Amino acid sequence: MPLSAIAINCTLKRSGGEQSSTDRMIGLLADELRKHEVEVRDTIRIADHDIKPGVSSDEGEGDAWPDIRRRILDCDILIFGTPVWLGQMSSLAKRVLERMDAFLDETDDQGRMPSFGKVAVAGIVGNEDGAHAITADLFQALNDVGWTIPSAASDYWVGEAMQSKDFKDLPQIPDPVKQGAAMLGANAAHLAKLLQQQPYPGVPEGS
Amino acid sequence: MPLSAIAINCTLKRSGGEQSSTDRMIGLLADELRKHEVEVRDTIRIADHDIKPGVSSDEGEGDAWPDIRRRILDCDILIFGTPVWLGQMSSLAKRVLERMDAFLDETDDQGRMPSFGKVAVAGIVGNEDGAHAITADLFQALNDVGWTIPSAASDYWVGEAMQSKDFKDLPQIPDPVKQGAAMLGANAAHLAKLLQQQPYPGVPEGS
Amino acid sequence: MPLSAIAINCTLKRSGGEQSSTDRMIGLLADELRKHEVEVRDTIRIADHDIKPGVSSDEGEGDAWPDIRRRILDCDILIFGTPVWLGQMSSLAKRVLERMDAFLDETDDQGRMPSFGKVAVAGIVGNEDGAHAITADLFQALNDVGWTIPSAASDYWVGEAMQSKDFKDLPQIPDPVKQGAAMLGANAAHLAKLLQQQPYPGVPEGS
Amino acid sequence: MPLSAIAINCTLKRSGGEQSSTDRMIGLLADELRKHEVEVRDTIRIADHDIKPGVSSDEGEGDAWPDIRRRILDCDILIFGTPVWLGQMSSLAKRVLERMDAFLDETDDQGRMPSFGKVAVAGIVGNEDGAHAITADLFQALNDVGWTIPSAASDYWVGEAMQSKDFKDLPQIPDPVKQGAAMLGANAAHLAKLLQQQPYPGVPEGS
Repeated sequence: MPLSAIAINCTLKRSGGEQSSTDRMIGLLADELRKHEVEVRDTIRIADHDIKPGVSSDEGEGDAWPDIRRRILDCDILIFGTPVWLGQMSSLAKRVLERMDAFLDETDDQGRMPSFGKVAVAGIVGNEDGAHAITADLFQALNDVGWTIPSAASDYWVGEAMQSKDFKDLPQIPDPVKQGAAMLGANAAHLAKLLQQQPYPGVPEGS
Repeated sequence: MPLSAIAINCTLKRSGGEQSSTDRMIGLLADELRKHEVEVRDTIRIADHDIKPGVSSDEGEGDAWPDIRRRILDCDILIFGTPVWLGQMSSLAKRVLERMDAFLDETDDQGRMPSFGKVAVAGIVGNEDGAHAITADLFQALNDVGWTIPSAASDYWVGEAMQSKDFKDLPQIPDPVKQGAAMLGANAAHLAKLLQQQPYPGVPEGS
Repeated sequence: MPLSAIAINCTLKRSGGEQSSTDRMIGLLADELRKHEVEVRDTIRIADHDIKPGVSSDEGEGDAWPDIRRRILDCDILIFGTPVWLGQMSSLAKRVLERMDAFLDETDDQGRMPSFGKVAVAGIVGNEDGAHAITADLFQALNDVGWTIPSAASDYWVGEAMQSKDFKDLPQIPDPVKQGAAMLGANAAHLAKLLQQQPYPGVPEGS
Repeated sequence: MPLSAIAINCTLKRSGGEQSSTDRMIGLLADELRKHEVEVRDTIRIADHDIKPGVSSDEGEGDAWPDIRRRILDCDILIFGTPVWLGQMSSLAKRVLERMDAFLDETDDQGRMPSFGKVAVAGIVGNEDGAHAITADLFQALNDVGWTIPSAASDYWVGEAMQSKDFKDLPQIPDPVKQGAAMLGANAAHLAKLLQQQPYPGVPEGS
């Protein structure tokens, strides 16, 4: 079965305005995944949707999460894209993680969460500083709720401290960021393929 | 080839004194790995060794890291055990991560660090609070330097806030901690086996 | 001039349902501040309001932030209350911090942000683990945007790892948490009074 | 009484070799403090001393901490300087924090730790990314053990993501970093003076 990936863009801006730096990073990672025969589906711009606060999988009337949740779990690979604000991930990125808290209670009879066997990678952009802190918080939370993290799974760009250059405005993407993307794409595709073919066995309840 | 694992215990106390809570956690995780036919070798008590500050793989005369580095890289799975102090990992845990910084420059001609294809898991114990913060910092740093993180790869115990109960003194290990260990063992062994049989391909230099 | 304080409760639940553990913690801290002649005004339940995503002080039509921002900046002390989810602060807490990013550009001719001379403290509750991580992220972000942090400014409660006891259901608040609140109240009131009487001088532009 | 400050440099390198970027940052902050009549004493290069692992104030024979602890607590202001490695503070910085854990038990009869009324600021330098994460971990740990954090108390420099420029080699220090230092110096001196003149009252035991 061919591998599939989906991206979420947790920028604070809705679609339709200026270009998003986070989208440029997601595009870079998506292109690398495609080189490994991964079908990269949509990028979901979180700011366009009304994901309600909460820790269940459906917070009722008007909640955009059930549909987004389904689309994420339909794929083998999640590209988690977020900008940096105050050195931390956006509140929209935090909202998505929060809603995945429900996975902890949605285990099958082998104790496996719906995210088991799926692979997550991070794409992070900011004007200056914060990518490692976000990687830490992302990987801890994503791993808690069942995602597998391939080797070297975070690609990022930030500019010099306290400056305001945007990733979207760089005339070209710096080589180390491109190389990071190439390795991330190769690692994520390889690991997702292995886990698709041979899923985690889990641990039977009561064992 | 049978899988092998090694543990590091980053408690601040040398061997020979009182029992280490971190050792009890490591023991729990090691037992679970053994159920999946993983040969668990030593637990290296970091406080017994003089790992020099630095970011190279050999800081010269008297540096204990080259030998510890070799023993870690001889195995497929690393159990990273650390206590919690002030809500953060110990300075000895930090020292070990720091020395792994050198992996970034020790890539083969496919761009792969020596840790590529190896799996890391965390065992964290404290009197109260701090396990998630340490998981975050550990997984970010370990993943940066090439380790793969299986699903639900951190098992931990902390007591109620601002109290001083020790994990080593619990009459029995709480069920959720045992279940976490069982799942961690199953996931780590499964993923390490897949990566042993089918290593990451890497990305050829200059591609 | 008498000191004033305001609290924000970043629970994911709207008012009107079950009691909030975060409210109980805020109540404890508020009582201690009142012992030092601080007028504690409202607790703003963030989930009741529509604070828009963004990093300006007014995101337009329907944005609840301008009013909340004004009420926060009318006071000398901010009690920042948040629950723990996945070991991290709530997305609503993150949203509030994000909106304070605008303070960085709202300096007076002495370079002082609107938060200069104001004191922030944290009240954090969860079932298990995460308070130190949230304290770290909160104090970094709040301090970046100008808040002063008095000695020992975080009070928290979390239960034993991987359990589900709620702070609101404890028959009584544990002594160390009460003592933490007493010290926090004394320290915050003392420091806020000093800064009210003798504001930071700032640094003249172009000096 | 004139104010005094001391700096610690947590670079991994001993004195006597190449210049330290962290020293350059410390020098910048020290100069700003001197403009406010603060006597800035030594910079303690932690790598030159053998601070033992542990969480007491004296770990016995050969432990350099008791003397360093005394020198730090003799001053009103601590400049905490650390480099960035893997997006985190150095293991030597972590060691210093760990030893301050003992302050929690060294309270006077008003419940005040030896650090009460003292002010801490951070100076952080790295090639690329990590300053906010370190600020978070530093301020949480320092505040836990009693230090007060003045407004905007972290100054830092990191270069563009994944590059290797050193702060010590910049032909000149960028303006925003200089402005950050000027504000940090003014804020720290102001707050330390207030707290020197009017110490925290603390909370009597058993109250």
